[in-house]
Amino acid sequence: MRYILASASERREELLRRLGISFEILVSHFDEDLIPFEGDVRKYVETLAFQKANSIRTSFTKDAVIIGSDTVVYAKGTILGKPTSYEDAFSMMSLLAGNHHEVYSGVALILPGEEGVTQFSVCTSVYFSAMTHEEIHSYLKKNEWQDKAGAYGIQGSASLFIEGIQGDYYNVMGLPIQALYTELKNLQML
Amino acid sequence: MRYILASASERREELLRRLGISFEILVSHFDEDLIPFEGDVRKYVETLAFQKANSIRTSFTKDAVIIGSDTVVYAKGTILGKPTSYEDAFSMMSLLAGNHHEVYSGVALILPGEEGVTQFSVCTSVYFSAMTHEEIHSYLKKNEWQDKAGAYGIQGSASLFIEGIQGDYYNVMGLPIQALYTELKNLQML
Repeated sequence: MRYILASASERREELLRRLGISFEILVSHFDEDLIPFEGDVRKYVETLAFQKANSIRTSFTKDAVIIGSDTVVYAKGTILGKPTSYEDAFSMMSLLAGNHHEVYSGVALILPGEEGVTQFSVCTSVYFSAMTHEEIHSYLKKNEWQDKAGAYGIQGSASLFIEGIQGDYYNVMGLPIQALYTELKNLQML
Repeated sequence: MRYILASASERREELLRRLGISFEILVSHFDEDLIPFEGDVRKYVETLAFQKANSIRTSFTKDAVIIGSDTVVYAKGTILGKPTSYEDAFSMMSLLAGNHHEVYSGVALILPGEEGVTQFSVCTSVYFSAMTHEEIHSYLKKNEWQDKAGAYGIQGSASLFIEGIQGDYYNVMGLPIQALYTELKNLQML
């Protein structure tokens, strides 16, 4: 079976390697802003995952399983994207500190030939401990907030403030590898 | 402040680095079999953590914070140690598959001078999906079970079968870094 990962994320690549399959990477340049968030987080991440996968579809990919994925941080009714500035990152960390929030990853699988499309999403709750302003600044000065939705990566320094999670850790990193493995098995695509 | 980690575990070393402190490593050769398990898992891991820290105590360490830690996998009333053989590892994975179990890490801090000792422990629940015999063999053939309590490391290939956790992921890896950070702050030892 031929697999294509439609993502430039090194974390997704690293996680997908755990399946023990070989795969190609074709980076999607789909503009996420084209999809408005209308209140249903699962539908939103699954649509983004599908659009990313679909955007790299050509005659060259038609015999392959294309894997698209998107991950969002959802806190107090709002989707937190990548911070646009230090101040924006500070606001996000202030919102997350002392609270729980949810991380959703959507996955879309475009199957070979005419076999269709499968989409699913996985939710993990994350609990941050309270942080002083000094601790937020100290964390932000490490510059890990850049290019990360919600201003943090669970695998980095923010872990000092993560009391716990409920659900799949790798889903927070960007790819729900256990659910993806199960889905590919069920589809007999492994 | 001077810190000493009383552990040979590379995972603990890597996690402790997240505190941004420099520390020395002195490997404890304390024989864990000297401490019998008498039914109280928290007491057991905290005692082991203390004994490891205490075993490297000399006049050379008396101005330092010594950090000892021990992690156990607890499933269905039994503590799972490191497997002694492939067959033993197979039995452990059969016990874990399709069930939840608990991972406890104990941490002991021996404080400088006459400031005493602090101990605590953290529990994380881990949920494994069902595994076929073929999947267990395929997992075991990667040899990741060797030298791992409960025959798995959450950061490895076993992640394909981990549906989710409840609690601190890093506690399962071997050091509850958020709780340790909080404790050191509370003790004004950071």
